[in-house]
Amino acid sequence: MAEYPPLTADEVNVLREIGQRWGSAFRDRRPRQTELPLDPTLGRYPPTPTPTRFGRLAPIEMFRAEKPDELVATVRAGIPESRLGRALARVRRVVLGPPLTSAALLYERMRKLVALPVLSSDLLSSVAYGPEAMLTILALAGSSALGLSLPIAAALVVLMIVVGLSYRQTIPAYPHGAGSYIVASDNLGRRSGLAAAAGLMMDYILTVSVSVSAGIHAVTSALPALTPLTVPLGLLMIAVLLAGNLRGVRAAGTIFAAPTYLFLGAMVLLLGVGLAQVAGRGFTPTPPPPVPAVEGLSLLLVLRAFSSGATSMTGIEAVSNAVPAFRAPEWRNARTTLTWMVSLLIVMFAGLMVLIHLDGVVPRPEETVLSQLAHRTFPTGPWYVIIQAATALILLFAANTAYNDFPRLLFFMARDGYAPRRFLHMGDRLAFSNGIIALSVGAGLIFFAFGGKTQSLIPLFAVGVFLAFSLSQAGMVVHWRRVRGRHWRRRQAVNGVGSLLCALVMLTAAITKFAAGAWVVVIVVPAIILLALGIRRHYNTVERALRLHPPATTARKRLVPTPAQPANGATGNAATQETEESPQEVRHLVVVPVARFDLAALRALAYAASLGSTAFAVHISPDEEEADRFREQWENWGDHLRLEIIVSPYRAIIPPLAHYFATLHTLRPDISLTVVLPEIVIRHRWHELLHSRTPQRLRRALRHLPGIVITSVPIHLSE
Amino acid sequence: MAEYPPLTADEVNVLREIGQRWGSAFRDRRPRQTELPLDPTLGRYPPTPTPTRFGRLAPIEMFRAEKPDELVATVRAGIPESRLGRALARVRRVVLGPPLTSAALLYERMRKLVALPVLSSDLLSSVAYGPEAMLTILALAGSSALGLSLPIAAALVVLMIVVGLSYRQTIPAYPHGAGSYIVASDNLGRRSGLAAAAGLMMDYILTVSVSVSAGIHAVTSALPALTPLTVPLGLLMIAVLLAGNLRGVRAAGTIFAAPTYLFLGAMVLLLGVGLAQVAGRGFTPTPPPPVPAVEGLSLLLVLRAFSSGATSMTGIEAVSNAVPAFRAPEWRNARTTLTWMVSLLIVMFAGLMVLIHLDGVVPRPEETVLSQLAHRTFPTGPWYVIIQAATALILLFAANTAYNDFPRLLFFMARDGYAPRRFLHMGDRLAFSNGIIALSVGAGLIFFAFGGKTQSLIPLFAVGVFLAFSLSQAGMVVHWRRVRGRHWRRRQAVNGVGSLLCALVMLTAAITKFAAGAWVVVIVVPAIILLALGIRRHYNTVERALRLHPPATTARKRLVPTPAQPANGATGNAATQETEESPQEVRHLVVVPVARFDLAALRALAYAASLGSTAFAVHISPDEEEADRFREQWENWGDHLRLEIIVSPYRAIIPPLAHYFATLHTLRPDISLTVVLPEIVIRHRWHELLHSRTPQRLRRALRHLPGIVITSVPIHLSE
Repeated sequence: MAEYPPLTADEVNVLREIGQRWGSAFRDRRPRQTELPLDPTLGRYPPTPTPTRFGRLAPIEMFRAEKPDELVATVRAGIPESRLGRALARVRRVVLGPPLTSAALLYERMRKLVALPVLSSDLLSSVAYGPEAMLTILALAGSSALGLSLPIAAALVVLMIVVGLSYRQTIPAYPHGAGSYIVASDNLGRRSGLAAAAGLMMDYILTVSVSVSAGIHAVTSALPALTPLTVPLGLLMIAVLLAGNLRGVRAAGTIFAAPTYLFLGAMVLLLGVGLAQVAGRGFTPTPPPPVPAVEGLSLLLVLRAFSSGATSMTGIEAVSNAVPAFRAPEWRNARTTLTWMVSLLIVMFAGLMVLIHLDGVVPRPEETVLSQLAHRTFPTGPWYVIIQAATALILLFAANTAYNDFPRLLFFMARDGYAPRRFLHMGDRLAFSNGIIALSVGAGLIFFAFGGKTQSLIPLFAVGVFLAFSLSQAGMVVHWRRVRGRHWRRRQAVNGVGSLLCALVMLTAAITKFAAGAWVVVIVVPAIILLALGIRRHYNTVERALRLHPPATTARKRLVPTPAQPANGATGNAATQETEESPQEVRHLVVVPVARFDLAALRALAYAASLGSTAFAVHISPDEEEADRFREQWENWGDHLRLEIIVSPYRAIIPPLAHYFATLHTLRPDISLTVVLPEIVIRHRWHELLHSRTPQRLRRALRHLPGIVITSVPIHLSE
Repeated sequence: MAEYPPLTADEVNVLREIGQRWGSAFRDRRPRQTELPLDPTLGRYPPTPTPTRFGRLAPIEMFRAEKPDELVATVRAGIPESRLGRALARVRRVVLGPPLTSAALLYERMRKLVALPVLSSDLLSSVAYGPEAMLTILALAGSSALGLSLPIAAALVVLMIVVGLSYRQTIPAYPHGAGSYIVASDNLGRRSGLAAAAGLMMDYILTVSVSVSAGIHAVTSALPALTPLTVPLGLLMIAVLLAGNLRGVRAAGTIFAAPTYLFLGAMVLLLGVGLAQVAGRGFTPTPPPPVPAVEGLSLLLVLRAFSSGATSMTGIEAVSNAVPAFRAPEWRNARTTLTWMVSLLIVMFAGLMVLIHLDGVVPRPEETVLSQLAHRTFPTGPWYVIIQAATALILLFAANTAYNDFPRLLFFMARDGYAPRRFLHMGDRLAFSNGIIALSVGAGLIFFAFGGKTQSLIPLFAVGVFLAFSLSQAGMVVHWRRVRGRHWRRRQAVNGVGSLLCALVMLTAAITKFAAGAWVVVIVVPAIILLALGIRRHYNTVERALRLHPPATTARKRLVPTPAQPANGATGNAATQETEESPQEVRHLVVVPVARFDLAALRALAYAASLGSTAFAVHISPDEEEADRFREQWENWGDHLRLEIIVSPYRAIIPPLAHYFATLHTLRPDISLTVVLPEIVIRHRWHELLHSRTPQRLRRALRHLPGIVITSVPIHLSE
């Protein structure tokens, strides 16, 4: 949960060493530190409500003092101070519910009968679009080509069995969670792991887009009047998923169980009654209505149909991701559940393919194949509506599973430094808000870009999924060679075949559907890998820069007096010049840029002088005349601080000051330069146009100079 | 020139008083202040080139030490440090020339023969579009209505004489510059002054748009092939004017003299030869070609024609603005020049109207009336081209005069606090860059919005101009009543008639052309007035907040010990709590928010501890467990500073910290709270997405709290 890993033993030792160097000079001052002028626990004051500038909230309502040096912030302390911030917090609370404390985080273990529906909605719902995707491609070559659907389906069933067996072996090997990212990183190296992660990210985003679009299609098949609203309805559904998941509703198993079992029941009913009807007429296939061929039948077309049909397998990895969520013995329960799931998938997929063939159903854009089958099987009665509703519902729940998996994947990547650290944080409802928002934005964009059409989205789908599958299985091949153990050669062979088949499907999909949309994935996956590597590189840089070094080396550098060593003053020294780690190493020089005598300038001067360190003031003048006038005022005031005037005859202000401070630092890099800037804080944004904002611009220019500390002394306008 | 007025005698006294309060406690520390650890003049170091982080530039190349406590910045010191900044500076230097020192500012006094062309290009060039604008309206009622052009022209000549006489009287009364803004503010109050200023601003912006469009029209009349390029050509011309004026080329009088005298010569030639030709055929008017009437002839149409024709008078105010630029006796020379100018205008305007009438010329969209006249008068030979070139040239110079007047008007307004102070600054080429840019943007936008068509822009023109004229004359009426003096009643009458006539023209234009575009002016002028008043109000607030108060009152407030006075801690006290003006009033408490132990945090802690004031650290934890872990590390380090832990079970970070600091300040408003923030400075913009930017966000939240000083201790990434 923590953004940064805890300190290592080495680092703790370094910390202790550094601390000892503080101690030597600091020990005698220590008592002063405990005698603070006020009580930081806010506790010594009576707990009667006192008005603060946030209205009549008592501090005690914002913080509770529990231990001598510890406060606990209440919900109120989390509400921002600004009016806009408070209003937004209120809206947020209404939509997402009140914040939850970290202590409310519960881990739930699932029984198999609960795990099955929770984890299988993604996989089983795929039959709502997979068979149709395959037939849509075949139909391009005319009705006669539809006869090929059965052999292709048989090949897919073989693929399902192989991948299922392959994942069965992964589960006991990675009982703490066998996500493709982890397995591939572990065994094949970080680039492969990132490739698997990129494939999975595309998978999850497309699971949401495709499931939502297929769900909407199930609805519009029953209610064609809604067809023109496909895109807004889909975006609304994604927004509902977003809000629901930001609320962090941990859907209890039973909620998930209902639609999955409903869908299973509906499918059993459809297949049973349908096959019985077909049996009634002696299994004679109804010839499909004539479909004009727009392409010749070719191997390419068959491969395209195969890789489209393979989208029926998306979601098969769900169990292996979730092994730790099962009751003990986790891996065994998980493996059994996987077997059930794959069996159910094969039965449903094969049954549907046979029934479609025998009924002569042909895909049509305005009505799904499933809807046609249901219409044909149940021309009257409520059954048709129940089947469509169950289909739409399970698809919605399938989209929801991506909302669990995507943020978790980003969490794992962020923990390894391959994704922004913000994906490590839980929002105030204990959900990984940033990942949830990222998924919704990605899915919403893709859904919108492809007009919410399932068949346009399918070409993007298979590549990422089978890339992740293939890398995960390949990782297992390496794993078995490393671990050995009983039957390791056989296991390796199973995973090897699985990996190879998945790689073939992936390549097939990428090549045959390149123009139809797979190019998006072919571009995005490497882009994600490069981005992840860049992110990791940056975090490594930051970590190196911030790592604690043993003070010995620093001491050597620091304690040798270097009054003027400008020869080394190049940029490379910037980092080493910022290593003061104990207070006695810090030698101060305070500089106050003064534009004119007003309250803001006097406060800054008083603040600088009161620090007790050496201080002087700098004034920048456009000409000698103004310089003389200012010097006269300075003497009127009493000439309490040394004044240095810079005449800037070209009227530039910021660059000369920045160069001046940089030069001071170059001349004496051992001195800590503090620039005290008076800053006028303005209440209305448009008023900023009326000010030159010199302090802000100076701060921006100085930020990039090493060894310069910037202190803002604010003065607030009351109106 | 200075952004702020110099201190008044009162303020100097207050300053001395405040300084004395510093002295009492500060005198014994004074010597330390002079013993700075480095020489702020950078002079004690050998002036050999030393490499700084800006390459191999020696500090001495950036600054010259002239006096003991004064440096002079060279051109190099004005170039920003960043790579982008340096590149931009190079481009700027090529386009605009090297910076000029403040000392290069010269004031030139003009002879009458030089002043005439410099100041009259705007006025005289108006005859290039004024008569045509009038005829275009009349032609709407068919050819027969064109006969009305002569009586309307006669009325306009009367108006010219009255306004000319009226301005003749203004000049001696305001020998230091008699701009409408100043005269109206002086005599009628600030709202009237602002109304005049708003009218003038519209006038200047439209002068540029209309002159450029008329100039382009003069060119496209001769070269019809260029007509489709009207808009890009016009924008290019405005860009040239922008760049030229940013360069601050003080056009010498002779440069201006040439095109004006050329135009005058061309007009004399055209009128002379044209009238001679007409005389040759016995002054029989050529009947105009039949024009179909699209509207009936009505009083409204006549008034519209009149107010369109009145745009021939724009620029008549130029002399009165520029009285101080004349040689002594200024007002007399200026007045003589005005008389000449108005006489020339009347001769040219009347002559053109007569010639147009006699030649039967009718306005046509593709060719200007002037071009038609020239074509007819000089069917062959170079004269036609010379006339067109002279017209285009004088119009370009007329547009240029607005580039002198508009920034000057904004300067006067900014001096009075009615415009952003940035309009007071001269750029590095000694030009009022901000005003020049504002004018170009405004004129460019209007030119673009109206497609560069002169006749579409004319309806906007008259309202603003005559509003300013009328208010200026009305101001003179009040002036005479106040000042009295010789013939004051007669003078008042002249200005009164002038004001009344101008007001009538303004109202006529506003009403008759409301729908055609005058509504823009009717909206913009009050908007400018409101904006100016809002700006002034804000500057007043700032000035009140920053004004130096005698320390007596402060002392009373401060020196009474107020350890806990939360009852007054409301917002109203914010300003009074920020009045520490001498160092002994400042009592420090330094707080360091620490997220984890790294180099950045240790530097911040070392910096805070080395300040010598009381300091403590705050850590915010999501739960007790993390809090305990951090406390343990803190003890490992040596527990050198008091640590206060805030447990934030809802995982919010910024708001609880902000509330915590606000509460500390509320409990002890007498203590100056300094929050020391370690800040990681990132080199690439996109890396910011990878950081939580907590210090930056905390700074933004704390900025709005009174009495909290924020110190940034930066640490730079070397990659």
